[in-house]
Amino acid sequence: MKSLSQKYLLSVADLSQKDIDLILKTASKMEDIAFHPVKKNAALRGKTVLLCFFESSTRTRASFEIAGKRLSADTINISSSGSSLSKGESLLDTVKNLEAMKPDAIVVRHSVSGMPHLLSKHIDCPIINAGDGTHEHPTQALLDLMTILKTGKKIKGLNVAIIGDILHSRVARSNILLLSKMGAKVHVAGPASLMPPFLDQYGVEVHHNIDTIIPKADVIMMLRIQKERQEESFFPSLREYSRFFGLNEKTMKHAKKDVVIMHPGPVNRGVEIAPEIADGVHSVILDQVTNGVAVRMALLYLLCGTEVSLRA
Amino acid sequence: MKSLSQKYLLSVADLSQKDIDLILKTASKMEDIAFHPVKKNAALRGKTVLLCFFESSTRTRASFEIAGKRLSADTINISSSGSSLSKGESLLDTVKNLEAMKPDAIVVRHSVSGMPHLLSKHIDCPIINAGDGTHEHPTQALLDLMTILKTGKKIKGLNVAIIGDILHSRVARSNILLLSKMGAKVHVAGPASLMPPFLDQYGVEVHHNIDTIIPKADVIMMLRIQKERQEESFFPSLREYSRFFGLNEKTMKHAKKDVVIMHPGPVNRGVEIAPEIADGVHSVILDQVTNGVAVRMALLYLLCGTEVSLRA
Amino acid sequence: MKSLSQKYLLSVADLSQKDIDLILKTASKMEDIAFHPVKKNAALRGKTVLLCFFESSTRTRASFEIAGKRLSADTINISSSGSSLSKGESLLDTVKNLEAMKPDAIVVRHSVSGMPHLLSKHIDCPIINAGDGTHEHPTQALLDLMTILKTGKKIKGLNVAIIGDILHSRVARSNILLLSKMGAKVHVAGPASLMPPFLDQYGVEVHHNIDTIIPKADVIMMLRIQKERQEESFFPSLREYSRFFGLNEKTMKHAKKDVVIMHPGPVNRGVEIAPEIADGVHSVILDQVTNGVAVRMALLYLLCGTEVSLRA
Repeated sequence: MKSLSQKYLLSVADLSQKDIDLILKTASKMEDIAFHPVKKNAALRGKTVLLCFFESSTRTRASFEIAGKRLSADTINISSSGSSLSKGESLLDTVKNLEAMKPDAIVVRHSVSGMPHLLSKHIDCPIINAGDGTHEHPTQALLDLMTILKTGKKIKGLNVAIIGDILHSRVARSNILLLSKMGAKVHVAGPASLMPPFLDQYGVEVHHNIDTIIPKADVIMMLRIQKERQEESFFPSLREYSRFFGLNEKTMKHAKKDVVIMHPGPVNRGVEIAPEIADGVHSVILDQVTNGVAVRMALLYLLCGTEVSLRA
Repeated sequence: MKSLSQKYLLSVADLSQKDIDLILKTASKMEDIAFHPVKKNAALRGKTVLLCFFESSTRTRASFEIAGKRLSADTINISSSGSSLSKGESLLDTVKNLEAMKPDAIVVRHSVSGMPHLLSKHIDCPIINAGDGTHEHPTQALLDLMTILKTGKKIKGLNVAIIGDILHSRVARSNILLLSKMGAKVHVAGPASLMPPFLDQYGVEVHHNIDTIIPKADVIMMLRIQKERQEESFFPSLREYSRFFGLNEKTMKHAKKDVVIMHPGPVNRGVEIAPEIADGVHSVILDQVTNGVAVRMALLYLLCGTEVSLRA
Repeated sequence: MKSLSQKYLLSVADLSQKDIDLILKTASKMEDIAFHPVKKNAALRGKTVLLCFFESSTRTRASFEIAGKRLSADTINISSSGSSLSKGESLLDTVKNLEAMKPDAIVVRHSVSGMPHLLSKHIDCPIINAGDGTHEHPTQALLDLMTILKTGKKIKGLNVAIIGDILHSRVARSNILLLSKMGAKVHVAGPASLMPPFLDQYGVEVHHNIDTIIPKADVIMMLRIQKERQEESFFPSLREYSRFFGLNEKTMKHAKKDVVIMHPGPVNRGVEIAPEIADGVHSVILDQVTNGVAVRMALLYLLCGTEVSLRA
């Protein structure tokens, strides 16, 4: 069995080209399982996967849980209801305790950027970062990459536009890192107040107007506006945001005929994307979700599967 | 393998006589599994069942989860903790996302009447309504029917009294529809303020006093008074409610010797039913719960089992 | 198959010497499973285990869930989110309802002392007490006993010091009962306001100063200070508590060279125990967690396994 160069999946920055190829190839095989009448494979039978979502999540948690179960792993949900989980220091103690129960993988989502990295310094068990603060969301970037490839496009030289709140988006950051590494040309657009300072080093082209980017883009990734957080502070109003940076029939007029529209979900219909575009022929939003299960199956398999478990 | 005429179970109104017979016959076989030393059947191995309880529930969720697991399905709990689930429109997006993970059945409870119907218009995966607002609770009516039949009574011509808050009760509505369809004579009693307008069309006889209904009834279904909601608005006080519409040793004096007492739970002891009646010889309240698991196993099996899965 | 003299595990007080030996011997076999590549045994296949944590818990619930799953049981989580669970009377109804779904074991944690005992008077299904109020936490005492034995120490004549809030600690109470029964000499230390009146009857020696107890102790169990509850009422300040009853390099100076340090978790680092001691060579805190899974596997197996299930 081939394996990753890493025992943790903390960041796409850590992945080698070979790792990425192996993950995508494995995910492609895993995807087939979802279309069998019996969607079950014994590869992770007897493995224990802890799903530690210290930040609430419906979709990503369900995606990992389904991924684990389809490979016959035992999945255990851990959330942050207990008061002992309110501070960073005791979170490490909690996870060290959980590790003492001999799990085979720990999936972690946390609102603090860098928390999975901190844990990995003290935890020997494989850790998968399921989103940490505004830092990274590597499984999202991997499933996005898989989704683009499945449309038949080549990544080398591909123009990918990421539009919205780049500053706070771990999805944007992981995609910028991964797509740049794979040879795509990444463009970003959004309000100037939502642009981070690190973009230069990855050769990302910054646009302050979506009209200059739409006509060039082979792929457009719209980001979710987190209404509860930004409305007041970073731009004047949702209506204005939508008018300048929303994707709708008018802004789509200048897009390429075979452009691919993506969104990590959950969608704010009518804010960052118009319903007819989200549900339209260019949209691969639901394919992203389907591919997400396959990518997570692949990662769980590569990080905690063993030759022995394959024969079990 | 025989199958239902419907791919969704949204309402008992949609079920044909043949469907009902098939469900009951299948449930009866499923019931046997609960009494085996190894309470496990491989019929749904490799099937994914999503339990989407957007309204909180202890018993019904546990009943469905046990039902799925005893048939070897993978069950995934989804609740409404995420803020994205607060509005109807985004609920549809959430469920469409979940569907993209390729589940085989989605069980939905929601506080909005008609929500499972709305979802079924956009979702191809089998949906089971586990209670929607004040509209329907079809699995409860089916388990109630199974429970009556198991006492040896014939439904045709049976006098069934449903007592309490008929207006807000999805249990009452589903039972009225199902029992009327099966040929029973349904009577209802309760405060005039808690009587809905639709009763005439099903030939339901309305009583404003339980003394005229108790002596005739072969089966008495007591409904739960939702103290938190109705106390102030629909009747003067719980004490008065209990005095006029509660079932106790005094009101039971005129009941038939072989009357059957039912309650969907949770019971407000001393309000709608006296403890000695709830725990007495006529009560089949706990049988209802046992039969509930069997009915839900039957429905999951009929809606997402396949010939292939039976051999798995 | 040998079995326990009890069908419930409510209190260590109920366990015979033979029961304790059987649990420890079985746990030792179960522990091996955690180190297999496929950590799975079919002993409880087709068994349904309800995990009713009516008081929130991360670790103990996860420990029981992993224990059940490694033996192939179906585990169902039940928590107290529903309003029907707020009162003692309706809790009994809830659990009677759950019992009607034919589970094979019910694990109960509840904030009210004696609740599992009350339930056992009305429930036929095996019940395991996972902590009730300030009363008992028998699985913790059993895993602590297993942990001490695995260090190579003999229990007969062993000096065990339990330090902290003895009054409110169900861990302390269960350990005092179990260790005394096994022939250990138990010493306790803590603020006078946190000493319960029942200590005399078990021959426990009370110290008001840890300096008199540390040099004698073969095993030191530190208890968690529940900061949220006691800070104001039972002692002047956390700082003062820590100074008089905390374990740190200074207080450890007079300890035996081979002393064993235990803590049931979660640890308040720097309050009852200094980080360098919690993580130091004498500490077996994480071994306690590992052994906890094994003890819970043993109990689930002994209470609901059958000859038939072993062959399954």
